[in-house]
Amino acid sequence: MKKLINEPDGVLVDALNGVAAAHPSLSVNVADRYVTRAGGPRSGKVGLVSGGGSGHEPLHGGFVGYGMLDAACPGEVFTSPVPDQILAATKAVDAGSGVLHIVKNYTGDVLNFQMAAELAADSAVRVESVLVNDDVAVENSTWTAGRRGTGATVFVEKIVGAAAEQGANLATAAALGKEVNERSRSFGVALTPCTVPAAGKPGFELAEDEIELGVGIHGEPGRTRGKLVTAKEITAIALEAIHADMPLSGEVLVMVNGMGGTPLIELYVVFDAVAKWMTAHGVGITRSLVGNYITSLEMAGCSITVCRLTPQLTQLWDAPVETPALRWGR
Amino acid sequence: MKKLINEPDGVLVDALNGVAAAHPSLSVNVADRYVTRAGGPRSGKVGLVSGGGSGHEPLHGGFVGYGMLDAACPGEVFTSPVPDQILAATKAVDAGSGVLHIVKNYTGDVLNFQMAAELAADSAVRVESVLVNDDVAVENSTWTAGRRGTGATVFVEKIVGAAAEQGANLATAAALGKEVNERSRSFGVALTPCTVPAAGKPGFELAEDEIELGVGIHGEPGRTRGKLVTAKEITAIALEAIHADMPLSGEVLVMVNGMGGTPLIELYVVFDAVAKWMTAHGVGITRSLVGNYITSLEMAGCSITVCRLTPQLTQLWDAPVETPALRWGR
Repeated sequence: MKKLINEPDGVLVDALNGVAAAHPSLSVNVADRYVTRAGGPRSGKVGLVSGGGSGHEPLHGGFVGYGMLDAACPGEVFTSPVPDQILAATKAVDAGSGVLHIVKNYTGDVLNFQMAAELAADSAVRVESVLVNDDVAVENSTWTAGRRGTGATVFVEKIVGAAAEQGANLATAAALGKEVNERSRSFGVALTPCTVPAAGKPGFELAEDEIELGVGIHGEPGRTRGKLVTAKEITAIALEAIHADMPLSGEVLVMVNGMGGTPLIELYVVFDAVAKWMTAHGVGITRSLVGNYITSLEMAGCSITVCRLTPQLTQLWDAPVETPALRWGR
Repeated sequence: MKKLINEPDGVLVDALNGVAAAHPSLSVNVADRYVTRAGGPRSGKVGLVSGGGSGHEPLHGGFVGYGMLDAACPGEVFTSPVPDQILAATKAVDAGSGVLHIVKNYTGDVLNFQMAAELAADSAVRVESVLVNDDVAVENSTWTAGRRGTGATVFVEKIVGAAAEQGANLATAAALGKEVNERSRSFGVALTPCTVPAAGKPGFELAEDEIELGVGIHGEPGRTRGKLVTAKEITAIALEAIHADMPLSGEVLVMVNGMGGTPLIELYVVFDAVAKWMTAHGVGITRSLVGNYITSLEMAGCSITVCRLTPQLTQLWDAPVETPALRWGR
């Protein structure tokens, strides 16, 4: 295992200290392991909390800030955050208007966020939750009942974050999050495995000419193993899987996301293939992201996430955002 | 070789098509291989042109936009852009106030930018150039006479870009670029090699417990090979090499840059170590970047770049920027 770390068990705490030092716009509670905006909650605004195992950076801590999340709860690498941690973050961002949990569909995450929501209710904090389950590759998997939650999480966090900033109430924010999730689908491909620091060895193996089609963000098995083919062919496999599940038409938001170990130049090669596929199928890409947004440590590979836009979703996507990993103002 | 590409010789063109499709704010001339702002040059503004081999993305194309570059000239992977290409970009962005070339110190880049500058003079375009040579690891190397140009390129492009936006003339912009370069130093470390698509195999080899200290952005040898040690120890080696060359004090801008294959969580572990080293040495980090800004394909490792700030440099660093890879407004 070759990693820029001090000790395998200290990675999360060291990284959180690094996040605190790098981003004055964030407040990092290292002891309780959550990240909030430095300014604290804003009265009248619904609080948005997400979280999950670490190793997917910049998700979720990199998306805390104006126009996106109020708090992120990072678990140990590829391990769910615990209920007390989520509860503490939930209480920290509640400004009286309730808190929305954005939860990726992994069994541990779902259970622990649910427990935290129940504990929060005991403290009179209203909590709603949105379950993200956009990955079309498989039904049920190593750590999931149903579909896995992957790239659409970024879309839900951005779009609901904008709505919350504009004053959406808890029920509206929850409904919007569900709408974004329902209109989004993802498919991922791995070229290499990745190594959890505490495990010290790769989570799976791939032969030199082999790829995992439909891989999960922890390296969970996908649909099938295939031979390494061209970026165009891989893109077509991913988009056809998405299109078969949710026919694509109209205007879409597309994310070509790097898994952590793939050079940006290759992600642009994939985006070119996506753009050509969409044109050939009469679909218009009107918004896009190309880069590392929801990663799997140093895994080589990419995922493609597509959201069928509406005018409202486009407007919320375009709304100003100011976080470490996503930042713009229009 | 496992890469998300179509054919090794087509990577640059495919990627440029992807950049064009992803970024409406850019204008990509795929035939002549340069990227400019979609809006064209602005009268009265000095044009900023940089370039170099591809494989270092987001450098340079990802830094084209308001407050930073006017054009980028990508060569083939790890190969200098050619004079005609640089000349075409130079002419495309000249608005009568001259053009500043920002050149990393590699022999091919230096020669080709110089030839382009001479050809531009024949067309009555005034050109000045700034040579970036911030890497303290080695004097002379595989592709360099003198020191290599690495991370400080990002600082020069951002800070001079802001000044040019505010109306600095050509001589002032060139002097400022030299000042930023003189106040900046870098040191890089590789944990794994990387593979140029056209070569098909890694450019060098490292044993499972070995790292290259002072590596170049093309995998050129550094000072020495060492055993893999902790992030704290690697950070201390890098910062002591920088500090020995340019004593650090006052306020600094620090970039912890990923080489392309290192997870963001590890870069934050390194940033934590940098912050603690700086505190122990009485140096204040007042601005920072953590992420992949000047990469070496899928190489695992990182580089640390430090710039000793002045109030003017801080103000220019903070000035609004709107490019694919760096974006903020204050």
